[in-house]
Amino acid sequence: MEKIMMASDYQCGAYPTILEAMAKTNLQARAGYGMDEICARAKERIRKACDCEKAEVEFLSGGTQANAVVIGALLKSYQGVISADSGHVSVHEAGAIEHGGHKVLTIKGKLGKISADQIETMMQDYYNDGNHDHIVMPGMVYLSQPTEFGTLYSKQELEDISVVCHRYHLPLYVDGARLAYALAAKENDVTLSDLARLCDAFYIGGTKCGAFIGEAVVIPNPDLIPHFFTIIKQDGALLAKGWLLGIQFDELFKDDLYMHIGENAIRYAEQIKQELVKDGYQLYFDSPTNQIFFIIANDKLEKLGEKAVYSYMEKYDETHTVVRFATSWSTTKEDVDKLCKIIRENV
Amino acid sequence: MEKIMMASDYQCGAYPTILEAMAKTNLQARAGYGMDEICARAKERIRKACDCEKAEVEFLSGGTQANAVVIGALLKSYQGVISADSGHVSVHEAGAIEHGGHKVLTIKGKLGKISADQIETMMQDYYNDGNHDHIVMPGMVYLSQPTEFGTLYSKQELEDISVVCHRYHLPLYVDGARLAYALAAKENDVTLSDLARLCDAFYIGGTKCGAFIGEAVVIPNPDLIPHFFTIIKQDGALLAKGWLLGIQFDELFKDDLYMHIGENAIRYAEQIKQELVKDGYQLYFDSPTNQIFFIIANDKLEKLGEKAVYSYMEKYDETHTVVRFATSWSTTKEDVDKLCKIIRENV
Amino acid sequence: MEKIMMASDYQCGAYPTILEAMAKTNLQARAGYGMDEICARAKERIRKACDCEKAEVEFLSGGTQANAVVIGALLKSYQGVISADSGHVSVHEAGAIEHGGHKVLTIKGKLGKISADQIETMMQDYYNDGNHDHIVMPGMVYLSQPTEFGTLYSKQELEDISVVCHRYHLPLYVDGARLAYALAAKENDVTLSDLARLCDAFYIGGTKCGAFIGEAVVIPNPDLIPHFFTIIKQDGALLAKGWLLGIQFDELFKDDLYMHIGENAIRYAEQIKQELVKDGYQLYFDSPTNQIFFIIANDKLEKLGEKAVYSYMEKYDETHTVVRFATSWSTTKEDVDKLCKIIRENV
Amino acid sequence: MEKIMMASDYQCGAYPTILEAMAKTNLQARAGYGMDEICARAKERIRKACDCEKAEVEFLSGGTQANAVVIGALLKSYQGVISADSGHVSVHEAGAIEHGGHKVLTIKGKLGKISADQIETMMQDYYNDGNHDHIVMPGMVYLSQPTEFGTLYSKQELEDISVVCHRYHLPLYVDGARLAYALAAKENDVTLSDLARLCDAFYIGGTKCGAFIGEAVVIPNPDLIPHFFTIIKQDGALLAKGWLLGIQFDELFKDDLYMHIGENAIRYAEQIKQELVKDGYQLYFDSPTNQIFFIIANDKLEKLGEKAVYSYMEKYDETHTVVRFATSWSTTKEDVDKLCKIIRENV
Repeated sequence: MEKIMMASDYQCGAYPTILEAMAKTNLQARAGYGMDEICARAKERIRKACDCEKAEVEFLSGGTQANAVVIGALLKSYQGVISADSGHVSVHEAGAIEHGGHKVLTIKGKLGKISADQIETMMQDYYNDGNHDHIVMPGMVYLSQPTEFGTLYSKQELEDISVVCHRYHLPLYVDGARLAYALAAKENDVTLSDLARLCDAFYIGGTKCGAFIGEAVVIPNPDLIPHFFTIIKQDGALLAKGWLLGIQFDELFKDDLYMHIGENAIRYAEQIKQELVKDGYQLYFDSPTNQIFFIIANDKLEKLGEKAVYSYMEKYDETHTVVRFATSWSTTKEDVDKLCKIIRENV
Repeated sequence: MEKIMMASDYQCGAYPTILEAMAKTNLQARAGYGMDEICARAKERIRKACDCEKAEVEFLSGGTQANAVVIGALLKSYQGVISADSGHVSVHEAGAIEHGGHKVLTIKGKLGKISADQIETMMQDYYNDGNHDHIVMPGMVYLSQPTEFGTLYSKQELEDISVVCHRYHLPLYVDGARLAYALAAKENDVTLSDLARLCDAFYIGGTKCGAFIGEAVVIPNPDLIPHFFTIIKQDGALLAKGWLLGIQFDELFKDDLYMHIGENAIRYAEQIKQELVKDGYQLYFDSPTNQIFFIIANDKLEKLGEKAVYSYMEKYDETHTVVRFATSWSTTKEDVDKLCKIIRENV
Repeated sequence: MEKIMMASDYQCGAYPTILEAMAKTNLQARAGYGMDEICARAKERIRKACDCEKAEVEFLSGGTQANAVVIGALLKSYQGVISADSGHVSVHEAGAIEHGGHKVLTIKGKLGKISADQIETMMQDYYNDGNHDHIVMPGMVYLSQPTEFGTLYSKQELEDISVVCHRYHLPLYVDGARLAYALAAKENDVTLSDLARLCDAFYIGGTKCGAFIGEAVVIPNPDLIPHFFTIIKQDGALLAKGWLLGIQFDELFKDDLYMHIGENAIRYAEQIKQELVKDGYQLYFDSPTNQIFFIIANDKLEKLGEKAVYSYMEKYDETHTVVRFATSWSTTKEDVDKLCKIIRENV
Repeated sequence: MEKIMMASDYQCGAYPTILEAMAKTNLQARAGYGMDEICARAKERIRKACDCEKAEVEFLSGGTQANAVVIGALLKSYQGVISADSGHVSVHEAGAIEHGGHKVLTIKGKLGKISADQIETMMQDYYNDGNHDHIVMPGMVYLSQPTEFGTLYSKQELEDISVVCHRYHLPLYVDGARLAYALAAKENDVTLSDLARLCDAFYIGGTKCGAFIGEAVVIPNPDLIPHFFTIIKQDGALLAKGWLLGIQFDELFKDDLYMHIGENAIRYAEQIKQELVKDGYQLYFDSPTNQIFFIIANDKLEKLGEKAVYSYMEKYDETHTVVRFATSWSTTKEDVDKLCKIIRENV
């Protein structure tokens, strides 16, 4: 039996209609740098889906790039970005934010989430510090929805965070690398329209949600970042064939596909959790989206690894490890059965 | 009649076999970040084509990104990169090199080319300046093949430049955004194997040469840039689905496709030049690759622009402008006829 | 009674012999940029004091500048600097290290100190992380002697840290902003010669230890940082009148002055602590150098602040605060008596 | 006879009253980071001298630092600074501006000066370029008064440049490293008050004009650069003992000293030029301030260099070189006689 690859949600190509659209338009000449009519239409679809007709929408290639470009564009040189300690920008981007000149100011998160109160405290501590002119000024807030642990901010939590952000003039930015899986989750009550209303910027993930590559950065107030196009170019993030990204989001937002594309993953994640919990395997916690975290004895890891690629999440205790699997839009019933079988036989 | 779009060579999608390969492999799960077997095979093909079995090959998304990442990785903080004044890194990358902390040290080029003697002189001037500790140290040489003007370095010219580079410990880096059109040009005598022998790094252009996106950075001595993977990640240039780039180069280097993919463009560029020169139109100069530069009276530009998208190259004199058209792997006989007709009728 | 200013150790000018030397040489013309014979002599004296004849010595203006320049010069672009969470580079330099492109990788310190074991654990965690190519590589270690809390590393502790640093190829760098007060402390067993033997770079603090301004960076292996002069210039840290720094260190290292200049501060700090503890005031802990940390009830702070400038260190509990006073080479018996009297009368 | 050192104007210490003031205040404790009453008074004197009561004034240590900090604070990430090709920021600061992320956009100067028309042309070229989104946006103008060649902008020229700068929203910044020598020059008609009226920022040079170290940055509109203090700190440019700079400018602006301190240099420069021209030596051109440029046969340079330190300016022709001498506030009649004698005997 071949190794099963469910370590993450970026392991297959693109949703089939995307490939079809690429094939159909392949030999048509069009304008470069995203100045074509497919990009225009895709942006328009996204604005509609976000209920925000004036939003600026820009397509970038990947999440680390989107985060670095947007955060770099929003912060002043003397500011840092507030993030959960487990935030992708804090731990898994090889220092891209610092490479751009900015400190990541971490708050201890609860399963990846931080709260309005914690941000409020950080800001008060900053202003109460007699030497705050000598320290990095918090300049914006970075969240992800879902978080690294697959957890979700509720609408109320985002509203509260937004209030604190306004009080302290902190732009609020949401990393939606896996946003489709949030939108498809049962416990989710945050819509794209809420994000457009509450955030100063966010990105709608494509790479992990049905596209080959691509993230759609949405800036509800289009005056927020002057010369954003040139900033993107300067960061090496501008594609000559911009429509490659446009065409994917054009498909993803046709007929509300993006609103539903995550459902398959949620259903199968649920099924994996139920089956294995029933069999006595222990979840780290019951994550509500497409990521599944199991606690596995260290002495079973090697054997498991021979049959399944998993993600190392963190040490649980001296003899156990938290490992992650992820379902996606492309996961099949066969994948699910195979993964469960492998775990049962090897762990 | 619709406007003809031959302003550049990135205006169509991908060579058809690429799309086919993407479709065929679309729902296969594979490892991320370029750690898959398609990338491995593509890299192996490129090493073979370059006659350099030990080379490190990395795939990046675009030319500005490739230049910024490689130049940033090769220079010390106190060094700058030598380039022709018309070099892409000097004028058309929105300051990406300076954004990375480095000065572009320009040499006046001749139709985009600089010479070994000019580099030698710059180095002697640097060391002869009593205050050279106060000025930016030239740290590497950037060339492009073909250049911004479509001109070509001969093998002898590259050999000479390489000698100077070795003398002064300057890594030599060649931007091959349009390399397929050099390889297909009649006057070209520089092979991929020559580049691998004479350069410290170069990139084989995909975006303009048959791919959707992608450039293959080749580093003949694989020890040259330690931790290049992390550098790429930090620059936001690492794709989760790395095989999207790998699959394109895998196709481009299957059966020597890349060696021939530019021939179509060269033939049609030749034809356009011959037809129009015969009719009395004036070339800026007879560029040997796929870019065509015409001198056009300013008062004809508006009318031309209504029928054809062209690139503004530079002012010729008070009443004339140099405009550029480009053929590509996807140019057809119809495109050629249409362009010639438009020019004849409107200029 | 005028407010007493003992909040820090940089509140007076320079040791008197420095001013005399400046006056004596004032109208002599000499070479710029530190290329003069006074700088040469000062460097030679420092090399002797460090027992390291081959060391490179460079004079910089202040501590944040020294840290930023040295750390920027030692790290590769993809690396970060390990520091105690309370380290000056981590909290009180306005993000200078991140501004230079690097993450500060913090370890929870004990009264400002970190241990060899903690560094070892950080390195093992880094290499054990399956995704370490996606995270910032620890590239050097930053310590301060004394620390922000005035605590001292013992020779054995530095030896142990040095062993771990060698194991992982981490340059070890010590910030000696208050080094004179370490050298004068009774419990200290680390000499300049030990620092030169165990560190890859360190700086001998002038600004807080008898000079107007100036820190002497010592690099025992002079080949460690090529083109350090140009790096300093590029960072805006090169003084035209370099001898202004040289003359101060020339005096500080004449007749072993620097070895003793901190004794006055230590004696008076001891006296303040003894007197006030005897009277029932509570130390945060018994810091061995020139910084004194008291726990003071919050409702006494305002009144105290009217008579004495103090430094806010941290919150002790809901109703108490840790405040800091510092003695220095210029503290007098009158200062000590005045401070004690003010505390007795107001706290 | 000892070598004469008149290669530049930073070769002696400080104007004597500065040393006296330092001695008088040496053991007084005061607040750090420029928050003391001496800095306050010095800033007030400068505001008065500039006829600009609301100006923000900050003291920095040197010219390269001042330029890097101010230019970094004024430019957006996607902008560059316009400068004469001979501008200090362009050639003699080891790439400090690029290190901060910005391109220096050069205009060919005439003896160090650029004109309003040239700036206008650069801006029109920028906006006329169809691809200007792909190139660095000119974001401010850098001039120096006097220039690297000692030449002066007239009030009319500055007015004209200011008009263009306003038209294109380009902050105008003037580097006044040698400003005292401009103010003392006979042909000068630009006052400090004119600079405060026409510039968005400028610095009044101390290092070359009577201080040990120090440049006073003047920002007429104090809202121009929010959080400038933290920016200075982040750049490693904040001195703990800020009054060291304040005290020097306090003396330099007491009783209008700065308005006259350059007169000595101008008078002696005039005398050197007259004497030597009379004797047949050839000036490169008759520079109006304290720098003197001679054309000297290359075969005389070695002998001259044995007796006098000179600055290499540029190659004149194959057999001649332009060398520079500079007078200063501390030049004496003996220096002048000695220099003339050395030249007569050796050239």
